[in-house]
Amino acid sequence: MNIRFYNARILTMEKNRDVFEGEIWIKNEKIVGVFTCRELAELSEDMFPRIVWDAEIDCKYNLLMPGFKNAHTHSAMTFLRSYADDLPLSRWLNEKIFPMEAKLERDSIYDFTQLAVLEYLTSGITSIFDMYIDPTTVAEACMDAGMRCVLVSGLNNFTSSAELMEEEYLKFNQKNSLISYQLGFHAEYTCSKDLLCKVAELAHKYRAPVYAHMCETEKEVEECKIRYGMTPAMFLDSLGMFTYGGGGYHCVYMSPEDMDVFSMRRLHVITNPASNLKLASGIAPVAEFVKRKIPVSIGTDGPASNNCLDMFREMFLVSGLSKVREHDAASMDADKVLRMATVCGAKAMGLNKADVLAKGKFADIIMLDMQSPNMQPIHNITKNIVYSGSKSNILMTMINGRILYHNGNFHIGKSPEAIYERCKNHLKRMLSE
Amino acid sequence: MNIRFYNARILTMEKNRDVFEGEIWIKNEKIVGVFTCRELAELSEDMFPRIVWDAEIDCKYNLLMPGFKNAHTHSAMTFLRSYADDLPLSRWLNEKIFPMEAKLERDSIYDFTQLAVLEYLTSGITSIFDMYIDPTTVAEACMDAGMRCVLVSGLNNFTSSAELMEEEYLKFNQKNSLISYQLGFHAEYTCSKDLLCKVAELAHKYRAPVYAHMCETEKEVEECKIRYGMTPAMFLDSLGMFTYGGGGYHCVYMSPEDMDVFSMRRLHVITNPASNLKLASGIAPVAEFVKRKIPVSIGTDGPASNNCLDMFREMFLVSGLSKVREHDAASMDADKVLRMATVCGAKAMGLNKADVLAKGKFADIIMLDMQSPNMQPIHNITKNIVYSGSKSNILMTMINGRILYHNGNFHIGKSPEAIYERCKNHLKRMLSE
Repeated sequence: MNIRFYNARILTMEKNRDVFEGEIWIKNEKIVGVFTCRELAELSEDMFPRIVWDAEIDCKYNLLMPGFKNAHTHSAMTFLRSYADDLPLSRWLNEKIFPMEAKLERDSIYDFTQLAVLEYLTSGITSIFDMYIDPTTVAEACMDAGMRCVLVSGLNNFTSSAELMEEEYLKFNQKNSLISYQLGFHAEYTCSKDLLCKVAELAHKYRAPVYAHMCETEKEVEECKIRYGMTPAMFLDSLGMFTYGGGGYHCVYMSPEDMDVFSMRRLHVITNPASNLKLASGIAPVAEFVKRKIPVSIGTDGPASNNCLDMFREMFLVSGLSKVREHDAASMDADKVLRMATVCGAKAMGLNKADVLAKGKFADIIMLDMQSPNMQPIHNITKNIVYSGSKSNILMTMINGRILYHNGNFHIGKSPEAIYERCKNHLKRMLSE
Repeated sequence: MNIRFYNARILTMEKNRDVFEGEIWIKNEKIVGVFTCRELAELSEDMFPRIVWDAEIDCKYNLLMPGFKNAHTHSAMTFLRSYADDLPLSRWLNEKIFPMEAKLERDSIYDFTQLAVLEYLTSGITSIFDMYIDPTTVAEACMDAGMRCVLVSGLNNFTSSAELMEEEYLKFNQKNSLISYQLGFHAEYTCSKDLLCKVAELAHKYRAPVYAHMCETEKEVEECKIRYGMTPAMFLDSLGMFTYGGGGYHCVYMSPEDMDVFSMRRLHVITNPASNLKLASGIAPVAEFVKRKIPVSIGTDGPASNNCLDMFREMFLVSGLSKVREHDAASMDADKVLRMATVCGAKAMGLNKADVLAKGKFADIIMLDMQSPNMQPIHNITKNIVYSGSKSNILMTMINGRILYHNGNFHIGKSPEAIYERCKNHLKRMLSE
């Protein structure tokens, strides 16, 4: 499909490039041109007729920008939304989450993942970094819907194995442009030292980065210190886990030494502010990460702990929580945060072709309504997006050159109602068992 | 207008009443009936034909509930959205906010207020408690658009006077059902003791409650202690300010003695979590207020400090920030928070006829889309609203029996584009002066 977006405001998210008016041209899954009005006027006259457009979309001076990268998700956990809130963490996990997860089947994981995909599309999320049981099914659900997904292993003592992870790593890093796979494990506290050593071996074998939940709660850090005499970040690094980089999800309780490890190994922090509030985990020292030039990206975490999959909420929180933590209203400005939610997320996920809007990049593009009251007046578009933006402003979400959501309608090959109905039926079974 | 809503899920917000399916009937500005399906079946057969409906709306099992009460706003400050963010508080106020406010005129206050009204409608907000320069113009802007507004005086040493406030109090508490007026002043630190004594006299003369910004920052509390040897709450109470009740906006820094004053005088706390984050003020001890049975309601504050006017964001924050502050994921459950955003807000604003959905109450009703992915599955509707709800779920906003917003379209007598254009022109003048 050849698609032309015209009359657009464009924010490419390339460094030091401001919003401008112009056009974006798409051919199949790639961007083939991003033009300012001036560049368009200077294009050779016979360029236009050579392209036959399948669709020409008048953007009416709404904003085109790269889609959001949701850098930490457990998508299929939609089935637990509003099922287990307002409980202490241990009761939440042991009485509610684990017993219900034990009843999941292939079909239900597929449909619960597609329910999450619907929500991602309404929030302008074009890539997810997803850790969950049965990545094969998650990949299928995403591929069938057209969602870009970077799978990461949630390996632990009870689920999967290093051998299976290696198999998945090789299988999913084939040439499918929508799906890729990163090495990972659930967390230090759910993996034996033996298992972690096997993960480190694979990291060395494939010169690959490794990702895991890290330093989410004070308890996790204290227990690791008792077990190994080191914090999780220090301990994992001592196993050679991060020779080829990687990153940590959450990173709420990080010592200066942990941050040194992150700096030295160029590890990514993936912050999850709403989930950290809702589970009473704490407020991550994001300003300190930024000061140390540790790359930060943003994830919603799963719907059991957040409960919504909305990057606008997360962006406001990254800024607002940093301001209140640092007692400084100037902390963590909107430009930094918007970069985290887009370019930095793409880097963390290894999606170097989905970071900015430029020729040759994947066409992962969203359109934001500038004619909504919360986007008026337009003193500064970036601040409007980060501080007053809402998923209600998402007019269109395009992934890999396909328009999957437009003016409130989904184009993923089935109706949302059909997905809701299937999810409802799965839950009926699971709750009655 | 007689309007019938049928095939609805209904959450009346009456105490101990769960969601049920049924109908709501409206006659002019009032609710004349709320029926369960069973009650409908039992209605005498000749009741239906007696009412001629102007509109019958199939709710398709979406949710009807009372509109949100935004209990602290400075609506006209929309013109400063994204104009002065990421600055320390003193520079924000002195270099950005005050110089621009000095350039406001009657016309611009009117249009900037209507811009806020558009946003309130998209967020399901049906009443605001608004403090700003020139309440007469704010009232006109609201009345013309159909918005319910409780004005509160922002009296201080530089603006308005006790005499003018008395005049406004008498003028705006006439029989217009959309507009009312409460006594108030900006804050202890912007009012002389003389002026505050005059306010207290008026409170006694009219046996009326009084509202003001209170204990928003540590600095405010410390400076008041130096001036008067007491915290703001204690000092104001010592003047007899709260004999007939009232409340404080923000209340971030409250001593146990301050809370005693609030308990004893039945004062309302109006919490503004997003604004308190963004200005780095702090996190209010909302769980402690609730424990002491101090009534809490919720406000967005103005768009210069928030920057959006979205009660969904505020509700999530009231719960999430309380959980993290108390180190307890069980703190501040969704039921409490939804009550704050509706019933408690109405009480704080003196809107006893706009609190719940019941016969004889004002028809201030919103419809929420239950067929959006972030509202699925439906384990618990209240938790869905508070934790994963979004302004994108607002299908309809009705105030005083009039549908002002429906399926993305505004019905306030003018187009949003016309309001944007007028605001843009005002700003052009103000920025060039």
